[in-house]
Amino acid sequence: MKSIIRNDSKILLIDLSDTKNRYLVDVSGKTFSTKYGEIDLTTLINREYGTILKSHLGRRYAALRPTIYDNIMLGIKRKTQIIYPKDAGYIVLWLGLQNGMRVFECGAGSGAMTTILANAISPDGEIVAYERDERFFKLSQKNVAKMNFSKNVKIFHKDIEEDIDDAPFDAAFIDVREPHLYIDQIWRALDGGAPVVFVLPTTNQIQQLLTQMENHSGFTDINVAETMLRFYKPVAERLRPRDRMVAHTVYL
Amino acid sequence: MKSIIRNDSKILLIDLSDTKNRYLVDVSGKTFSTKYGEIDLTTLINREYGTILKSHLGRRYAALRPTIYDNIMLGIKRKTQIIYPKDAGYIVLWLGLQNGMRVFECGAGSGAMTTILANAISPDGEIVAYERDERFFKLSQKNVAKMNFSKNVKIFHKDIEEDIDDAPFDAAFIDVREPHLYIDQIWRALDGGAPVVFVLPTTNQIQQLLTQMENHSGFTDINVAETMLRFYKPVAERLRPRDRMVAHTVYL
Amino acid sequence: MKSIIRNDSKILLIDLSDTKNRYLVDVSGKTFSTKYGEIDLTTLINREYGTILKSHLGRRYAALRPTIYDNIMLGIKRKTQIIYPKDAGYIVLWLGLQNGMRVFECGAGSGAMTTILANAISPDGEIVAYERDERFFKLSQKNVAKMNFSKNVKIFHKDIEEDIDDAPFDAAFIDVREPHLYIDQIWRALDGGAPVVFVLPTTNQIQQLLTQMENHSGFTDINVAETMLRFYKPVAERLRPRDRMVAHTVYL
Amino acid sequence: MKSIIRNDSKILLIDLSDTKNRYLVDVSGKTFSTKYGEIDLTTLINREYGTILKSHLGRRYAALRPTIYDNIMLGIKRKTQIIYPKDAGYIVLWLGLQNGMRVFECGAGSGAMTTILANAISPDGEIVAYERDERFFKLSQKNVAKMNFSKNVKIFHKDIEEDIDDAPFDAAFIDVREPHLYIDQIWRALDGGAPVVFVLPTTNQIQQLLTQMENHSGFTDINVAETMLRFYKPVAERLRPRDRMVAHTVYL
Repeated sequence: MKSIIRNDSKILLIDLSDTKNRYLVDVSGKTFSTKYGEIDLTTLINREYGTILKSHLGRRYAALRPTIYDNIMLGIKRKTQIIYPKDAGYIVLWLGLQNGMRVFECGAGSGAMTTILANAISPDGEIVAYERDERFFKLSQKNVAKMNFSKNVKIFHKDIEEDIDDAPFDAAFIDVREPHLYIDQIWRALDGGAPVVFVLPTTNQIQQLLTQMENHSGFTDINVAETMLRFYKPVAERLRPRDRMVAHTVYL
Repeated sequence: MKSIIRNDSKILLIDLSDTKNRYLVDVSGKTFSTKYGEIDLTTLINREYGTILKSHLGRRYAALRPTIYDNIMLGIKRKTQIIYPKDAGYIVLWLGLQNGMRVFECGAGSGAMTTILANAISPDGEIVAYERDERFFKLSQKNVAKMNFSKNVKIFHKDIEEDIDDAPFDAAFIDVREPHLYIDQIWRALDGGAPVVFVLPTTNQIQQLLTQMENHSGFTDINVAETMLRFYKPVAERLRPRDRMVAHTVYL
Repeated sequence: MKSIIRNDSKILLIDLSDTKNRYLVDVSGKTFSTKYGEIDLTTLINREYGTILKSHLGRRYAALRPTIYDNIMLGIKRKTQIIYPKDAGYIVLWLGLQNGMRVFECGAGSGAMTTILANAISPDGEIVAYERDERFFKLSQKNVAKMNFSKNVKIFHKDIEEDIDDAPFDAAFIDVREPHLYIDQIWRALDGGAPVVFVLPTTNQIQQLLTQMENHSGFTDINVAETMLRFYKPVAERLRPRDRMVAHTVYL
Repeated sequence: MKSIIRNDSKILLIDLSDTKNRYLVDVSGKTFSTKYGEIDLTTLINREYGTILKSHLGRRYAALRPTIYDNIMLGIKRKTQIIYPKDAGYIVLWLGLQNGMRVFECGAGSGAMTTILANAISPDGEIVAYERDERFFKLSQKNVAKMNFSKNVKIFHKDIEEDIDDAPFDAAFIDVREPHLYIDQIWRALDGGAPVVFVLPTTNQIQQLLTQMENHSGFTDINVAETMLRFYKPVAERLRPRDRMVAHTVYL
């Protein structure tokens, strides 16, 4: 039997016009309103996900069940540069994350990647995350709680310069400005041969990190990779790539 | 305390010369042998993962703990075209997979993607996979068992043309030659608004699928995307992209 | 001795702020004016190209000598989709254009590619171009004259469906919506083994064209290729790719 | 009337099997021979370009007229890293090359790019090229002569460290290992506002060059770009990108 929308459900509303705008809304919020008209969300109660709605001005919307990925992309207040999904998925796979693993993250930022990592090791694993900026420390805690992963995540208001407690970890994800300064701490915090991914936006940072790694005996199997994502216009009769694609974000 | 290699451990051996060849071996296998010399694997017992070894001809190897991703890439006998990790990670994220979800897969192929999907929904979720080719049906079962996900995976020797049992599912992953013939069955098997990813190697198949979807009222928020992965030569003083990159594989 | 700006010179003005806006102006126009202030262009007379100017509000501009490529990109009124420079340069090379060659083009559009082709075969070669839309026919003639290539270019208000006169040609460049309908005419118009490039925005058009070519004995060495161009932020300390790149445009 | 092959013609032979191997041969060479059989090239005399031939073992070949691009790619002995056509075409366009222009090149290498530049400014322009390695100096002279551009090209056995004579130039193309050491010489050799392209394989070199340029007042409108080229399998019914693409080569 297909799932039914309840009065405490969260809904992903997708504007079915060309804009394809996406909204994350609570049915309990009762009214969804844009310049294209209003929708009474309570009419969704007891109907199936996937229902098509019309605003009072005739705009059509689909009411879908948000995935965790929708929740992260739309439901998290972000104040930092995001890790693109094209990168996040590849990172989770590359780290070999599984239920029960213990992962070290630095820094937590707004908690988006923390949530993705927590999801990958839940229900039994643990993320230990450091965040030195107090504002982000609070924001990431709030966002992780909102996504219901507080049980799996401990965020500390700490800098990576300090000793990393609770080691060794099964994997690490490092997203700080100058990771080359801390590779010794990171190496000590990792279990033998455990994978670590660094995210670095500039080629200069990669060079600095590689220089440090080449002088450090502990890292082997070093890869520098970059993912690109290209969207196509989804029209059967005129299938073509979009003129612009998302490209960049370099990591190890 | 760092983890210790035991006599029943699986080891990822990485050749530290320029070849960077990777081998998945059992310590209990006792001897690892290539044209670059032999290694007595039992010397690894009671040492930490990350240990560096030399063959009797002097070739150096790192002994790491394989991730699930290493196990899949190196430990699974593959007879079908693979889903690249760049795609697999993005697909898992895009489907929003979480512990406890129920996912429909067709076809299972050699079971590599089945294992990745199973890992993402374990320990409490379930994959129901169809595979019509008897050889692949048996191979995928064997590979899933080897990766210890038999508890989470049911593979059926069945065709997607038949009714899909155990519906509705929270997500679906479809990797068959002519998916456009079956979108009605797939749509009925999915919970309202649940995500589905199709993997299609040619632009012709995408066009056929889009044509069917445009005539079917049930699919919204259709995306056609392609990931590309580019590796860099990891040398600090001469950081540059490799001349060739892995690009392609189109999906929805 | 470096070149001197005269009162009948054309100038490429580049805004040296972050906008990097580019303007093609005549010194004889006397005044250049934007919301960032006015510049008296006559002060440039008898000075060298490369001079830096300030508007009366302090905005800085470089006064460069425009290349033919600047003239085409900025000086041509365009009403059609453009051929990107990343594609145009590769096409000219792929066609092996040299002084003296005779090239058939269809359709001329706004004349931008016509000018690039004419430049590549001048001073002694010839472009014969067809354009069936009267508005574009007139526009392309005007633009080619403005770029001083009237001597090398004959544009006809004609459709490719009709016989192609003045054959055989040494090369052809085809930019029409349904080239697959005309490959017989094109083949007859080309000298034996002469190269032809088709520009096609959608994968469907490529498939249709390939289908026709596979049934036609005259075409060999068929390639389908696509160029992508990626820009980097040109900052020494933070060298990184821009987040978005120009990608697409498929041709043969 | 279509062109006729003569006994002193150069022919591009393309193997019509899946290998698509390409050979540049002289009809006067009389016999073309591979493990797939022999061809008597004299049978081509007085026939049209585009003729299909069979070896005595049945292998099919097309006999085409080579373009200048074929002549460069196949007829030049190369001992240096090549500039890919995807880059060469874009560079010629970006430099705005036209008949009559004077261009400075350093270093000439095997003369492939010298030939492409010479073709773009012929018949009336001039390339002044420096090459400090005696072996390449001789090779580039030989290759340029073979391509019939000796009239337009002067190659000097000189280093860029020395003064650049015959300045100012309308454009420059620099392909040396450490261009950042010479930007002052290059700037002095260029006419005001004239374009220059540097080809640099590593990101480190780009950073060094940008650092020098940021400290030099003479360069404006600096761009760092990279072209990528992707080939598709040219099969109408199964149109798809090839799994690997040519990517890289960074320049300004």
